[in-house]
Amino acid sequence: MTDPNCIFCKIASGQIPSACVFQDETAFAFLDIGPLAEGHVLLIPREHYQTLDQMPPDVAGRLLGRLPALVKAAVEAAGAEGVNVLQNNGKAASQEVPHVHFHVIPRRAGDAFRFNWPASKYPPGRMEELAKAIREKL
Amino acid sequence: MTDPNCIFCKIASGQIPSACVFQDETAFAFLDIGPLAEGHVLLIPREHYQTLDQMPPDVAGRLLGRLPALVKAAVEAAGAEGVNVLQNNGKAASQEVPHVHFHVIPRRAGDAFRFNWPASKYPPGRMEELAKAIREKL
Repeated sequence: MTDPNCIFCKIASGQIPSACVFQDETAFAFLDIGPLAEGHVLLIPREHYQTLDQMPPDVAGRLLGRLPALVKAAVEAAGAEGVNVLQNNGKAASQEVPHVHFHVIPRRAGDAFRFNWPASKYPPGRMEELAKAIREKL
Repeated sequence: MTDPNCIFCKIASGQIPSACVFQDETAFAFLDIGPLAEGHVLLIPREHYQTLDQMPPDVAGRLLGRLPALVKAAVEAAGAEGVNVLQNNGKAASQEVPHVHFHVIPRRAGDAFRFNWPASKYPPGRMEELAKAIREKL
């Protein structure tokens, strides 16, 4: 359940050193060496899953149950005012390392991280159609 | 544990209708009416927590154990190529509705959602200092 060629597997196993902030049987959290902001943490599963859809629900639940404490500690340590949690799956979503990782990005007014919010509207009936399609796949 | 003035509490209780795709005792998921992309889903806890740091770990774990299936279903239903999960805490992080919500944003090449990646570097010693500060708060 680990990939010998994966940099995040190597970090979680200690083969590659990192500034670790938390670890247990399921989860490993460490500082991103190319931070978007002070205290930018990566939370990863120890086991190798390329994308989130591949994770068993119980493993995802154990991993992500750590998020509340982690975001609180990162914000406090960085003296930040807010925090984004961002997780990218696939090249179309800007995933760089093919091992599931949740970015914890402490924020303050005027800092460098930016995203747009191109909110659109559905044509009549399309939202209900999509909701039905999603329900049928769950 | 609900806020009578909160729009997401009203959606989760059914007081305000929504295009719901999933619900159980802990979680409620529905389509965002101002989608960044087709199949943009919001996953929220039924109980009212303003920000992620306020959620008990077990509630966060139960809520977020639903993410793998949800991202898979949203991507498939939307015919997308990838998916971002984004969760914002506080005004400095662009949180709009003060009830924890995870955006599930299906992506395809050339679509409208964009974020920058202003990766920086820590000065010598700063990463270790921050990691220590985070560990001490966990």
